[in-house]
Amino acid sequence: MTDELERTSRTKIKRHPERGHYDRAVVNEILDEALVSHVGFVSDGQPYVIPMLHARAGDTLYLHGSTQSRAMGALSGGAGVCVTTTLLDGLVLARSVYHHSMNYRAVVIVGEAREVSDPAEKLDAMKCLVDHVMPGRWDDARNPNDGELKVTTIAALRIDEPSAKIRTGPPADAKADLSLPVWAGVIPLALTPGEPTPDNGAVMPEYLERFLSGNGGRASSSAPGDKS
Amino acid sequence: MTDELERTSRTKIKRHPERGHYDRAVVNEILDEALVSHVGFVSDGQPYVIPMLHARAGDTLYLHGSTQSRAMGALSGGAGVCVTTTLLDGLVLARSVYHHSMNYRAVVIVGEAREVSDPAEKLDAMKCLVDHVMPGRWDDARNPNDGELKVTTIAALRIDEPSAKIRTGPPADAKADLSLPVWAGVIPLALTPGEPTPDNGAVMPEYLERFLSGNGGRASSSAPGDKS
Repeated sequence: MTDELERTSRTKIKRHPERGHYDRAVVNEILDEALVSHVGFVSDGQPYVIPMLHARAGDTLYLHGSTQSRAMGALSGGAGVCVTTTLLDGLVLARSVYHHSMNYRAVVIVGEAREVSDPAEKLDAMKCLVDHVMPGRWDDARNPNDGELKVTTIAALRIDEPSAKIRTGPPADAKADLSLPVWAGVIPLALTPGEPTPDNGAVMPEYLERFLSGNGGRASSSAPGDKS
Repeated sequence: MTDELERTSRTKIKRHPERGHYDRAVVNEILDEALVSHVGFVSDGQPYVIPMLHARAGDTLYLHGSTQSRAMGALSGGAGVCVTTTLLDGLVLARSVYHHSMNYRAVVIVGEAREVSDPAEKLDAMKCLVDHVMPGRWDDARNPNDGELKVTTIAALRIDEPSAKIRTGPPADAKADLSLPVWAGVIPLALTPGEPTPDNGAVMPEYLERFLSGNGGRASSSAPGDKS
């Protein structure tokens, strides 16, 4: 069952349109795997791009920042934003320089953000953000007190105008180059967790062990797929 | 020897100023390790953020895109851009939710891009981009012909107004939380290459073996460092 989204003039993919996806399930999967978005906004006519932690709850994307930052100021003010998330899945080495590429999955969302001011929604959003990074963490760590809640700003963006762009599969060399004696292929890339550095002597929780063994949902890599 | 850069109103870091770095060597190291930047520009008042491959040559950052893309159109037109590069180095799990954080190294560059039109500079920039992804690749793969050069657009941005923001080290819990029986520490993250999928039977080149064994310069991870 697909949930096809509208292609607007702002989200329609012009370059390599065959890599475009407007299915909500595809968009959600990328947002749920990625930790960080790059958030674009305009201030005094100048574009800025700031990395922020994100997490999705239904059709809402929550973004975490600080009350003091320029980015959160712009986002809370309801200005137009563009939130882009990119997962690098591989280096595509073709026989010709021209066909070198990357395998990736990216989502671009345009819209207007709002500041989350309702205390209950803010707490839910914070839980969503923490458990997005590591499922199970919220119930274990000390939850925020009133003072901490006050100095945290969460912005929310409706995922109403997203698009996804995906490249998977092997290099796409021209026929004339196929017999060149140049190694060609794909080097998969994945953001992989290493050995933890503990800061205390507490027992490692089960959810962290699950995360490290690859079942935490963070360390998945690219699916093999269409050549495009 | 440091090469301290000017802090302008556009690059000065307000939130967590102790994480700010304005040293060119620090900026360059991050740009050289990262593969992809998120490029922000304004079109009809709307900000857009698009991931692009980048590579540095001296004080110039080259960005690779397609002649047909909206992004390259905006960049070539000399509009203001913001290029942001983020390396995720770790998850910082504190005893309190509030002090959860990420270890990261990010560079933000503002300025005006230009299209690289001189054929010699364009070829140099392409070599720089290809060898940035994998040192040694340019001399091995078939180099671009005139037709391929024509349909490739490279934008250049002077690295005159950059800033870097870095967080390293353990969680920074409040004193009152230090005795909580909650596991705390850092989970390092690194973009790691996996087993290559060859597209032909050519012998694997030495530079690729070097890259996969971690000497290609791509798979370095965060340095242990200051708590901030």
